[in-house]
Amino acid sequence: MAMLDSVTESPLYRIANPRSLAFFGASNNIASMGTNQLLSLLSLGFEGTVYPVHPEEEVVLGLDAYRSVLELPETPDVAVMVLRAERVLGCVEECGRKGIRHVIVVSGGFKEMGGRGVELERELVETAARYGIRILGPNGLGVANPHHRLNTTFIAHEGSPGFIGLASQSGSFVTQMFNHLANHGLGFSTAFSVGNEANTDLVDCLEYLGACPHTRVIALYIEGIRRGRHFVETARQIVPHKPIVAYYVGGSDAGRRAGFSHTGAMAGDDALYSGVLHQAGVLRAASVTELFDFCWVLGGQPRARGARVVILTHSGGPGAAAADLCGRAGLELPELAPATLERLAPFVPDTASVRNPIDLTFSRNPLDFYSAIPQVLLADETTDIVLLYLLTPVVMVERALAHMGVPRQQVADETSKVLAQQADALLEVARGADKPVVAYTWRSLGEDFYRRLLEGGLPVFAGAERAARALRAMVSYRSLRSRLLSRGDQPSRSPNP
Amino acid sequence: MAMLDSVTESPLYRIANPRSLAFFGASNNIASMGTNQLLSLLSLGFEGTVYPVHPEEEVVLGLDAYRSVLELPETPDVAVMVLRAERVLGCVEECGRKGIRHVIVVSGGFKEMGGRGVELERELVETAARYGIRILGPNGLGVANPHHRLNTTFIAHEGSPGFIGLASQSGSFVTQMFNHLANHGLGFSTAFSVGNEANTDLVDCLEYLGACPHTRVIALYIEGIRRGRHFVETARQIVPHKPIVAYYVGGSDAGRRAGFSHTGAMAGDDALYSGVLHQAGVLRAASVTELFDFCWVLGGQPRARGARVVILTHSGGPGAAAADLCGRAGLELPELAPATLERLAPFVPDTASVRNPIDLTFSRNPLDFYSAIPQVLLADETTDIVLLYLLTPVVMVERALAHMGVPRQQVADETSKVLAQQADALLEVARGADKPVVAYTWRSLGEDFYRRLLEGGLPVFAGAERAARALRAMVSYRSLRSRLLSRGDQPSRSPNP
Repeated sequence: MAMLDSVTESPLYRIANPRSLAFFGASNNIASMGTNQLLSLLSLGFEGTVYPVHPEEEVVLGLDAYRSVLELPETPDVAVMVLRAERVLGCVEECGRKGIRHVIVVSGGFKEMGGRGVELERELVETAARYGIRILGPNGLGVANPHHRLNTTFIAHEGSPGFIGLASQSGSFVTQMFNHLANHGLGFSTAFSVGNEANTDLVDCLEYLGACPHTRVIALYIEGIRRGRHFVETARQIVPHKPIVAYYVGGSDAGRRAGFSHTGAMAGDDALYSGVLHQAGVLRAASVTELFDFCWVLGGQPRARGARVVILTHSGGPGAAAADLCGRAGLELPELAPATLERLAPFVPDTASVRNPIDLTFSRNPLDFYSAIPQVLLADETTDIVLLYLLTPVVMVERALAHMGVPRQQVADETSKVLAQQADALLEVARGADKPVVAYTWRSLGEDFYRRLLEGGLPVFAGAERAARALRAMVSYRSLRSRLLSRGDQPSRSPNP
Repeated sequence: MAMLDSVTESPLYRIANPRSLAFFGASNNIASMGTNQLLSLLSLGFEGTVYPVHPEEEVVLGLDAYRSVLELPETPDVAVMVLRAERVLGCVEECGRKGIRHVIVVSGGFKEMGGRGVELERELVETAARYGIRILGPNGLGVANPHHRLNTTFIAHEGSPGFIGLASQSGSFVTQMFNHLANHGLGFSTAFSVGNEANTDLVDCLEYLGACPHTRVIALYIEGIRRGRHFVETARQIVPHKPIVAYYVGGSDAGRRAGFSHTGAMAGDDALYSGVLHQAGVLRAASVTELFDFCWVLGGQPRARGARVVILTHSGGPGAAAADLCGRAGLELPELAPATLERLAPFVPDTASVRNPIDLTFSRNPLDFYSAIPQVLLADETTDIVLLYLLTPVVMVERALAHMGVPRQQVADETSKVLAQQADALLEVARGADKPVVAYTWRSLGEDFYRRLLEGGLPVFAGAERAARALRAMVSYRSLRSRLLSRGDQPSRSPNP
């Protein structure tokens, strides 16, 4: 088993990058799931051709509809089916006859239902094999590839294309994370909902995402791994180039029971999965929040060279809390080098503490906190990571400007300018750094200041705990990667394309 | 040591509920901290009299200023001092002579600085003792009691008065949490920043908050406890009536070092503190986020009678993830009783799974999810807690309404109405329940739907992990409380006044 040389070699390539689609199960009834899925596709501005297939409607959502896939004027790359399970088999058969070789089966009612569903899925796999069709699903939501303006899920895509590749045994975590990611300035590169994995599984997705040039980090939502050995081998080839983070839901009794009734995957003992993931070089997240938090720093920041974090704050308490959480997460808080202290001196008031965490108490010039000081800290050789606490209460800036004589009707504009200048200064430092720069706050990430930082690529965590755990993941990735490389699995191409 | 019969017996009562204030250190210079603190006080609409004391200014922020506290026309209840450390002693002396018996010393430069600062603090305590003055601080931000429109900190208060009492060895966690709490529909009842605890400490605050009628749950931010035995005794008297949650920052080496340089409190071994807190019946939070998350459910929800959680979702993945996290947190996911399944049947589509988690897949009538179904679940005797996953993507409701023929310009309004109706239906169920009802989502809590739920008192957590840990805290409180009660520490008054 080797890494793919190009993403185009993946059997999922056409599924994630179709030039044309046949769509079964959309109508003009807004209450139907298929209609919603086609609407999501159209609203993202999919640029390929879409052929709705419908037994009665002549036009579906403004597009010419066809009675049968056999009547289409061309052979589309992919068919998407949102049909009752009993109707799927016949339609896949027709797709095969039409020459379609990739089908996304959204329909549930297969293996996950037991009984007749198991039988139906077996027949589906047999039909697919007869025509050489790769199936994504059944019982999944398909794929979102915002770089290709593709979204077959039922929730409209929000935000921008991003660098997180996802393979998920839950469709929800493809479609319902658009908003969560957008709120953090993130997005998917490509996200696959594998459903019951009839003949395409997590490992196929891993191979795709490992080779995908838009993907800088891979997230896995796992309810159960089927091809264990292939999984480990594939992951071990990818990890030296790209980090992989997994959330495994089947480890607790409750999670296992829930996952089992959900997709019918075989979950297993928690310790067993820990072992498999570790062997594979895959980082394990303890929740969905962590899954994407880890991806955020791993995909968006330079690699951490070590575990030494310098914390910069205006406030003692948040600094102490972050130090405590970093300490508990296994990170180190080095003392600053004497030369660094000397370089900091011009920016630091008498009331400040320059032990780590650095507690400025206040800034002589507010911009120092966002620019000069982090630059000095990043230049210290004992610093591996800089973690900033951000406060910036809009109301205080407004208050200061009002009292400085800025006319009332200009205060809001001027405040925006001041905050934008501060955000841009920090972004410039972070972009120029070859070390991770990460922030945390307890203010709302919806504020303009934080939106600007997030859109600019700076991870800002809601609270120090999430930041500390994410930084720990960066350090863990370093160890996992070194271990794989030292065993002779040399990377065959450059990291983070 | 007994619980206070009334909050008015507390030496902190006048500090938290002053009728009049002398304010040292505010001027017309917006760059000074004292000025910002007075502005915060005025902007919250403090209704008592404020007397700025300033050596030169005749008017400070529009208020008549006095050269010396001795010149004031009355003896104010409290003096607030934001002065350089060297000037504090003389001013406290004058306050004593004027008859003022409560002083908030914001100034740093005392014990936390070592050397001369230690000496200064000793002199401060001696002067205070001579006049019978209670000092809050030095090196703290004072107090925020939004019920009394009091805020001596430098950040303007946001949000509404609430039910969380805070005693904090960091001022930041008083002033910088206003926004965090408001974003969750929460607020402080009263929050004390104890600073160096010259002659008023965490235990005094505990006594106050234990008796405070606005306080339903107590949060402690601890860098080090000085009066260990008193702390334990006081907490044990309060816990049967009100939960207490503590975040202890000094437990890791890094946290200890940071906390020590911050307020000069003696931090100690993590295990020792775990023991003390457990003995005291105090729940321990692992971060500031957890501290307030725990307070949210403990102060805002009916007590949990047990650990059995029923999870209600539209989506398999988020249900499985929540089940996994609840399982890991030590909560139980009971199967539903046959009678409950029967009562659910009319609301549940064929595709649904009614094992716990309940995965509706879709609702026949969207309101069922928010009203009829949770009501049925709450009526099941094996249910102790109901946990809902909320999705509600605005764009889908808009899409549905637009396709149902609602004119374009009315879609936004109609969407708001539909969502408000859903939120209100859920709030009505939660308010009528004698069991906790809690939700989680991955959408932004800033959306109107979530704002409405939060303002209505329903805890909605960003992610299942925070929800699971908060629910676990409710179950732990039940155990701590039972243990204290069974040892004969009978509560002397009714819970949650």
